[in-house]
Amino acid sequence: MANDIEYDRYDRIRPIRWTGAALELLDQRKLPFAVEYLTAATSDEVAGAIHALAVRGAPAIGIAAAWGAVLAARDIDAGDGAAALAKLEPALQRLNAARPTAVNLAWALARMRRALAGAGGDWRDVLEREAQAIATEDLAANRRMGEMGAALIAPGSGVLTHCNTGSLATAGFGTALGVIRAGVAQGRIGKVFADETRPWMQGSRLTVWELQQDGIDATLIADAAASHLMKSGQVDWVVVGADRICANGDTANKIGTYQLAISARHHGKKFMVVAPSSTVDMDTPSGDLIEIEERDPSELLGVSGSRTVADGIQAWNPVFDVTPAALIDAIVTEKGIVEHPDAERMKAIFGA
Amino acid sequence: MANDIEYDRYDRIRPIRWTGAALELLDQRKLPFAVEYLTAATSDEVAGAIHALAVRGAPAIGIAAAWGAVLAARDIDAGDGAAALAKLEPALQRLNAARPTAVNLAWALARMRRALAGAGGDWRDVLEREAQAIATEDLAANRRMGEMGAALIAPGSGVLTHCNTGSLATAGFGTALGVIRAGVAQGRIGKVFADETRPWMQGSRLTVWELQQDGIDATLIADAAASHLMKSGQVDWVVVGADRICANGDTANKIGTYQLAISARHHGKKFMVVAPSSTVDMDTPSGDLIEIEERDPSELLGVSGSRTVADGIQAWNPVFDVTPAALIDAIVTEKGIVEHPDAERMKAIFGA
Repeated sequence: MANDIEYDRYDRIRPIRWTGAALELLDQRKLPFAVEYLTAATSDEVAGAIHALAVRGAPAIGIAAAWGAVLAARDIDAGDGAAALAKLEPALQRLNAARPTAVNLAWALARMRRALAGAGGDWRDVLEREAQAIATEDLAANRRMGEMGAALIAPGSGVLTHCNTGSLATAGFGTALGVIRAGVAQGRIGKVFADETRPWMQGSRLTVWELQQDGIDATLIADAAASHLMKSGQVDWVVVGADRICANGDTANKIGTYQLAISARHHGKKFMVVAPSSTVDMDTPSGDLIEIEERDPSELLGVSGSRTVADGIQAWNPVFDVTPAALIDAIVTEKGIVEHPDAERMKAIFGA
Repeated sequence: MANDIEYDRYDRIRPIRWTGAALELLDQRKLPFAVEYLTAATSDEVAGAIHALAVRGAPAIGIAAAWGAVLAARDIDAGDGAAALAKLEPALQRLNAARPTAVNLAWALARMRRALAGAGGDWRDVLEREAQAIATEDLAANRRMGEMGAALIAPGSGVLTHCNTGSLATAGFGTALGVIRAGVAQGRIGKVFADETRPWMQGSRLTVWELQQDGIDATLIADAAASHLMKSGQVDWVVVGADRICANGDTANKIGTYQLAISARHHGKKFMVVAPSSTVDMDTPSGDLIEIEERDPSELLGVSGSRTVADGIQAWNPVFDVTPAALIDAIVTEKGIVEHPDAERMKAIFGA
């Protein structure tokens, strides 16, 4: 990181705090109207908080689960890591089941299992150090991605982002929002736009709030206003996160991402995906092989508890869509940047 | 109209009813949860209902204002139309001021003035007949446009529409929704999708409700899901209304329309604009000359009275956008269809 740029100033939110005795989770269901941390003192309380969406965002879920494993260890006695692992397994499986589709949750727990399996009598310390490492490495990766992504953005640019990929979804700094934080810190980004991101309104509820907390002005727009915004010339880059990146660079992300990529290409604007390398899935050759999760149509029948739609109306509520690699100008990970992604360029960085 | 097709079955909603003594307006602020007509017994009550958005949609506003003029006539005595017109003018101006930007409001009142100016002792009858004619002609134009537009749609097609362009916005049947009604009646349209249309949620609140009333199944989607829907192959045509159509075919319509047109072209789907010829503005050469109205950002800070955004957040809330003619496959009016619109083809139907 360049030493003369004050990234810390733009990175004040920590959704996950380890007190040494318990895990404190910023309750995202209550944002932006209440900033309240809930305290999880047991592994099952952590699982419950993940399941209930008090903590969300793939990296944040993984970190919370790692600390959940540390809490589970309080309840057992074991002479070494292998013995501890056998006793911990039921609790780890309950944590893993809290959000079965979250890749980072399984990834973080697998990492905790590996650390434990090789540990001796100091297995409790090993476990706690591993959880801390997962959190610390996530933050460091986000800082690195932020700096790399921001370097692609010309000074004076405007950016548009989608959903929430910020401090709230990670250990801190964020992925796509990390690029935006770094770009603002470096003076490259002049104007930040965030869309609402129906149906969950992550943009309205979370993204503009967390940028506001860090003193970054952001302007909220309706999802449907993005193309009009691009035509107006106020946006040079669309910067988004990813839920899964395939071996050819096709990227699954929050519903609406694909539409932004089409529009960016139509207007000659650039499109950047920012995600940790743990999001890259080299076993899935292309995006058409990704099954798109569809959630309960009821999410489209109202907003924040306020009903807007008549009884008996059908709705279709896909949660993700797939943006083909051909519409992506750069995929930014902590391992490097893939510009104009295709299978060959992806393989050069992420292996077979 | 083809006699063997039962359009009436799909055209049951009448937002404006004239009782002979008063005007009844379906209060669209209360839809879809209450179907209540409010009664306007005076011209100023009609103006108030227009101003308060109890009645909305350009054609519907024009029709309501015409009946408002009839109600205003109850309060005056005059020997002929010219004398009546002079006495009515203050009330007409109050009606006109109820929604100053609605083109059809001024158009309908100008038509009432012309009818009155030439009338003799029977001016009261002339005035009432003219109001009835405006309503009747609107419905007939919608039926005609519906049939013409539906003829462009191949049997078995899926359609996506935006905002509300239906019975609720007109005397009945609707413009873009009229094409969808006719297409369903003819068995050409198999599947209908409507998007939510943030921030006002006209799609959620009005469009799917009115189609449901007429027994037409429609599926609601998030605005941001439209491109994913098109990629899925379930949509062959996007069918929308228009607020203004320029001399070259560029079309201003509800925010989000432009995005749908870009996406339709990207996916090789067709894009149809349906609007009465009174919407065509041959005095405006192209869409870049249209000033886009921006409304209060507060519309993006919540939904249906439920707040979603933190205090102090900025929002940008353009209400319309402009779809360039090059992205439009057909403009359907009651005077004819302009396929692949440009200035020359527009002039051939709408004159200089």
